[in-house]
Amino acid sequence: MIQNVAFIGLGLLGGSLAKRIRQKHPGLKLYANTHSAQTMALALSAGVVDVTGDLETVVREADLIFIATPLEFITKSIVQTYKKSKPEAIIVDLGSTKTDICKAMQGYADKFIGGHPMAGTEKTGYTNSFPEMLDNAMFVLTPYKKTPKKKLEILRNFIQDLDMRTTMMLPEVHDTAVAAISHVPYFTAAALVGLADTSEKKALAATGFQSSTRVAGSDADWGVGVAMTNKKAVLKELQHLQKELMLIKKLIATDNTKKLKLMLEKRRQHRLGMYPQ
Amino acid sequence: MIQNVAFIGLGLLGGSLAKRIRQKHPGLKLYANTHSAQTMALALSAGVVDVTGDLETVVREADLIFIATPLEFITKSIVQTYKKSKPEAIIVDLGSTKTDICKAMQGYADKFIGGHPMAGTEKTGYTNSFPEMLDNAMFVLTPYKKTPKKKLEILRNFIQDLDMRTTMMLPEVHDTAVAAISHVPYFTAAALVGLADTSEKKALAATGFQSSTRVAGSDADWGVGVAMTNKKAVLKELQHLQKELMLIKKLIATDNTKKLKLMLEKRRQHRLGMYPQ
Repeated sequence: MIQNVAFIGLGLLGGSLAKRIRQKHPGLKLYANTHSAQTMALALSAGVVDVTGDLETVVREADLIFIATPLEFITKSIVQTYKKSKPEAIIVDLGSTKTDICKAMQGYADKFIGGHPMAGTEKTGYTNSFPEMLDNAMFVLTPYKKTPKKKLEILRNFIQDLDMRTTMMLPEVHDTAVAAISHVPYFTAAALVGLADTSEKKALAATGFQSSTRVAGSDADWGVGVAMTNKKAVLKELQHLQKELMLIKKLIATDNTKKLKLMLEKRRQHRLGMYPQ
Repeated sequence: MIQNVAFIGLGLLGGSLAKRIRQKHPGLKLYANTHSAQTMALALSAGVVDVTGDLETVVREADLIFIATPLEFITKSIVQTYKKSKPEAIIVDLGSTKTDICKAMQGYADKFIGGHPMAGTEKTGYTNSFPEMLDNAMFVLTPYKKTPKKKLEILRNFIQDLDMRTTMMLPEVHDTAVAAISHVPYFTAAALVGLADTSEKKALAATGFQSSTRVAGSDADWGVGVAMTNKKAVLKELQHLQKELMLIKKLIATDNTKKLKLMLEKRRQHRLGMYPQ
């Protein structure tokens, strides 16, 4: 039974998850340890968490611990948390890439399970967090073969009780997928922003450009982090995108309106299948 | 004084504009002619327009006429409307590209002024139109040197009274700008959709991918139309985007995290300057 839930790190994702747990399960006791004293004070005064303090205080009694620190600190946080937590504890990270972390943390598989909720906005930090961000979100889990079945079961039920969906996959499969649908779209948005390089372009940019480039507002450190921890897949999907753009360019340059229309209509339908109106 | 306003074509943009005029100036008489009898019946029964009918009926008494047909029919609609309208009439089109149209319509400059409201959604058609789509939108005008000053003045005031902004520029400047901030982002979105090519990728795609690819839901005919009427600028901006992506790829491949972070942060700031939070 999960009674005590701890957060190491409490930014956009951790904060949203803590708020959601508070909302859905007001009876649970929530703990948080973050590098920002201000965030801890905010979360405490708003009643989002019950206890803040040093790592040991926060994880000692915890049944479930979310590692919600930036990508580069995750393994370090897991190791520290592992040492200070009880044997029955479940430790889940929320990092955007999984292969490196899960490889490095194999020796901690009796407590640690890789995780990644597919949710976010272009903003960062606890002050921008909100529980609805996780509405119906897909929470990916990347367990090990040796992950205790019982712990995985408890974790999945807990997440589903928060009105999120769960799916399990290999870390490598996750990383390939997010390269295509998250990392490369982010780098593309950053590239597109560079096209608005005159006052006229800026003046005419409207809601279409705003939506196409929204994710370019994400934290640059996050971008560097996913590029470095998911380099192979990101480069491969960037290559894929370039091939797609080359094809479109060729169809336009050769006035091949028939094939261009077919392709654009196919893509419109493909997207409509993913996001029905 | 504008008393009678006519629409030739009544889709997403024309419909939104008609609804906005009705809302802001209920005293004006609105006319519409479209190829769809159903749309005319809908607009009439909802009280969005007062009169529907053939082109002559609709434009004969009109002081201001919006040509809101798809790109490929615009010049034809302008020529027909020109013939049937009174000498004092102002004819404005709403087409997404301006150079070809304004060049072809030079002989009609006593009535015709090129226009393009920077607004839209990924949907199409009258049934998806709504007046708020034009809130604070930038309405670009591309008048001729010989455009009657008085008519331009009346038109600008009319648009501004609808709570839109106006700006004037050369058709070529407009087309270069929209290639960068509208057409290429659309083709890029269509390309990005192609990256979601496995069930895992589709399952993990969340709100970020949704927003990055939103404009890929636009009408494929529109895409073909802007590609063909703005080919040179679109190809140039596609080239620009590819250069940007090549740079990002190189920085990732060479682990140049310092320059990568600088670039991503610069783009984040650039976008924040365009769309303050």
